[in-house]
Amino acid sequence: MAKELVFGHQNPDTDAIVAAISYAYLQKQLGPDVEAVALGDPNEETAYVLKHFETEAPRVIKTAANEVKQVMLVDHNEPQQSVSDIADVEVSHVVDHHRINNFNTANPLFYRAEPVGCTSTILWEMYDEHEIAIPTKIAGLMLSAIISDTLLLKSPTTTEKDRQAVVALAKIAGVDYQSYGLDMLKAGTNLDSKTEAELIDMDAKSFEMNGKSVRIAQVNTVDLDSVLQRKAAFEKVINQEIADKNYDLFVLIMTNILNSDSEGLVLGSASGQANFEKAFDKKLVDNLVALPGVVSRKKQIVPPLTAAY
Amino acid sequence: MAKELVFGHQNPDTDAIVAAISYAYLQKQLGPDVEAVALGDPNEETAYVLKHFETEAPRVIKTAANEVKQVMLVDHNEPQQSVSDIADVEVSHVVDHHRINNFNTANPLFYRAEPVGCTSTILWEMYDEHEIAIPTKIAGLMLSAIISDTLLLKSPTTTEKDRQAVVALAKIAGVDYQSYGLDMLKAGTNLDSKTEAELIDMDAKSFEMNGKSVRIAQVNTVDLDSVLQRKAAFEKVINQEIADKNYDLFVLIMTNILNSDSEGLVLGSASGQANFEKAFDKKLVDNLVALPGVVSRKKQIVPPLTAAY
Repeated sequence: MAKELVFGHQNPDTDAIVAAISYAYLQKQLGPDVEAVALGDPNEETAYVLKHFETEAPRVIKTAANEVKQVMLVDHNEPQQSVSDIADVEVSHVVDHHRINNFNTANPLFYRAEPVGCTSTILWEMYDEHEIAIPTKIAGLMLSAIISDTLLLKSPTTTEKDRQAVVALAKIAGVDYQSYGLDMLKAGTNLDSKTEAELIDMDAKSFEMNGKSVRIAQVNTVDLDSVLQRKAAFEKVINQEIADKNYDLFVLIMTNILNSDSEGLVLGSASGQANFEKAFDKKLVDNLVALPGVVSRKKQIVPPLTAAY
Repeated sequence: MAKELVFGHQNPDTDAIVAAISYAYLQKQLGPDVEAVALGDPNEETAYVLKHFETEAPRVIKTAANEVKQVMLVDHNEPQQSVSDIADVEVSHVVDHHRINNFNTANPLFYRAEPVGCTSTILWEMYDEHEIAIPTKIAGLMLSAIISDTLLLKSPTTTEKDRQAVVALAKIAGVDYQSYGLDMLKAGTNLDSKTEAELIDMDAKSFEMNGKSVRIAQVNTVDLDSVLQRKAAFEKVINQEIADKNYDLFVLIMTNILNSDSEGLVLGSASGQANFEKAFDKKLVDNLVALPGVVSRKKQIVPPLTAAY
């Protein structure tokens, strides 16, 4: 079998990097010649995770078709979140926990999705189904991805399976997931060292909604006030992005990981902002809106916004 | 949990009917309140199968939203092959072995696809993963579906997993799959009792290709000559269908299940016929073309035709 590349989405978060590593390991045990790669460098949280579990960051690729004919996607399926030349390769496998949108294939493929909190939870099940033991370090990485995606099992995306996976993986990895998890999340919230332009691109995804392009970025923090003090500077770089990339709407979700509340900064066309107000039945005040209890882009932002569009 | 309906595609074949029955049984063991239904009556082969394994045909539905909010799809995902009001319900689960096309969801869901010969092969794996025993009659039904979809393991869609499933299911069902399989396939090829209009709708699916609608029907036979003698009558009803439904192309595949060769009758727009000729690098003669070794719509017709469009 020809070699295939395995990778997560652009602007990779911990799950995108880690799921590629753990799925590649699982596939190698099953036979296929695969390599885990990434569509970007690890963010600070992921760098902390990789260092803690002594694993090298995957090689970063810009295109895939120059290397392989087939690829395996983890933690995403929508083409605009994938490698730039995704149309020039065949997707043979997908493991994901997001909605399916704009994903079309010419041939049957392997596709595994479940509505759970994290791709790594599905991979934990798949290791079990194939009766393949999870190496200690990879268990630590998978545990970290679930903690990251579910904000330590507090996000509404969290399912019973995620909880079971966290307990089982923490045991293999030999860590106390509560204390390790908090340290890890805090490592990802060091925002002071980053420019506003970096922050709005760190964990951002584009969505097509009724023909319009909507960008949703999220930053996690333990100090929301200091993030909000940078509002004017955020608005400047976001409006520049909107002009450059022709977004109809740009939503920046600023999430306090200690109490799971968020503040939204919502910029774009008048009709785009109106769609946001309709989606959440709230008025924007000076482009800002309080979103108490909202921590999940996938479960709490994308569905109502898609419906409003 | 609110009740959900489980069903296969329109113009159901044996896998579409049987996968709904066996997936509904599996789901019930896991908890959800589900009912297997169908989007049409069983064909002659499926009727033979249901009678042999003493199982009632599922209730036929025309719409779903009047009964439930959520549905589970088996053996298909493309909306135009599904229930007429599929846009008005939410798809919560899919188990399928086809390409993914035009399938979009607002929310994450359970999706399980593998490039194997039959949905029932994937379900056989899923029973094993959940450690749920397959009842004797359901094992017989699942065995029949795999024999049907793979033409007794002779179709190029057949994989090693399909072979393993057939052997395992035949053991549970207590039948000799070779002799039972041939009887079953022959039961489905009694074409004399049917009109041409019935035959072109019996196992037919629509595909969107580059914005055009393409219909691909298939009939299995043990006597190709007697089918070809009805060519003029087939052309008349197919041209009527093309006019009524605005198909760009209508392909009727007539397959000799004894030697796995087919003859194609290809009607439609001049550019549509040209696309077919380009896809197979063959000239139509009097709208007919020999397709030796071609038995799989999914693997041998749809991909080259999609590429040509």
